[in-house]
Amino acid sequence: MSISIRPAQRDDVAAIVAMLADDHLGRARERVEQPLPEAYYVAFDAISRDANVTLVVAEEADRVVGCLQLCILPGLSSQGASRALVEDVRVATDCRSRGIGEQLLQWAIAEARKQRCNLVELMTHQSRTDAQRFYGRLGFAKSHFGMVMRF
Amino acid sequence: MSISIRPAQRDDVAAIVAMLADDHLGRARERVEQPLPEAYYVAFDAISRDANVTLVVAEEADRVVGCLQLCILPGLSSQGASRALVEDVRVATDCRSRGIGEQLLQWAIAEARKQRCNLVELMTHQSRTDAQRFYGRLGFAKSHFGMVMRF
Repeated sequence: MSISIRPAQRDDVAAIVAMLADDHLGRARERVEQPLPEAYYVAFDAISRDANVTLVVAEEADRVVGCLQLCILPGLSSQGASRALVEDVRVATDCRSRGIGEQLLQWAIAEARKQRCNLVELMTHQSRTDAQRFYGRLGFAKSHFGMVMRF
Repeated sequence: MSISIRPAQRDDVAAIVAMLADDHLGRARERVEQPLPEAYYVAFDAISRDANVTLVVAEEADRVVGCLQLCILPGLSSQGASRALVEDVRVATDCRSRGIGEQLLQWAIAEARKQRCNLVELMTHQSRTDAQRFYGRLGFAKSHFGMVMRF
């Protein structure tokens, strides 16, 4: 089956939230209800308005099977190079180990190069050891700690 | 002496770049020349145009003694909550241990709350153990790894 990567549409929000919730950390954080809480659509509209933030989905046979959010961040450091930040990478549970995550990341890496970033960065929870192996295989170095203050 | 936190101006770029360069990791990455390479000003203008990115400086007696960049990122996860990303925190070498970094971070945390983010996140190189202690003291948890691919 062929996978295509495309910008997320408003109609994809429920499928994306279902993937965010289907996860040992996401379960407690999301609200998968029908109808979906309006806050998700408000956030989707904010993403759509933000030229530096792109939410993409992986689609296979009309089904959304993965997602990734890419932010291109301007900054002074490294001689004024922009940085690319990858967030919210998910692949549907029954579609894992088939290269969908890699295809999403390769899209993000290519986009970061196109936008002349000098690096791609991401944070992954210390408990996600499979994710760390996956990113390591793609060429990411575990060089930093990610520190978080939740409100 | 009293410290004020204010948005960076174009005139501050040289002082900020000097702080970015005065660092064991920054030294090799920056070009502190007179005149400063144009790329820094191009990046400053991109930051100024981006409503979600704010670069602030700490000022003491008309001297720039610290800086911090805050990005407010929309996202679907955590019920559509925005996240705040802190980058490029620096304090001039001769002004350390006087609470300037803490004042910059407290500004960022307050701003993140005001913009209704559910968390503040940052990445710090594993070699920056002092920084990790500092962020831990402010209430940041070392819960994640930061993974980077440099081009």
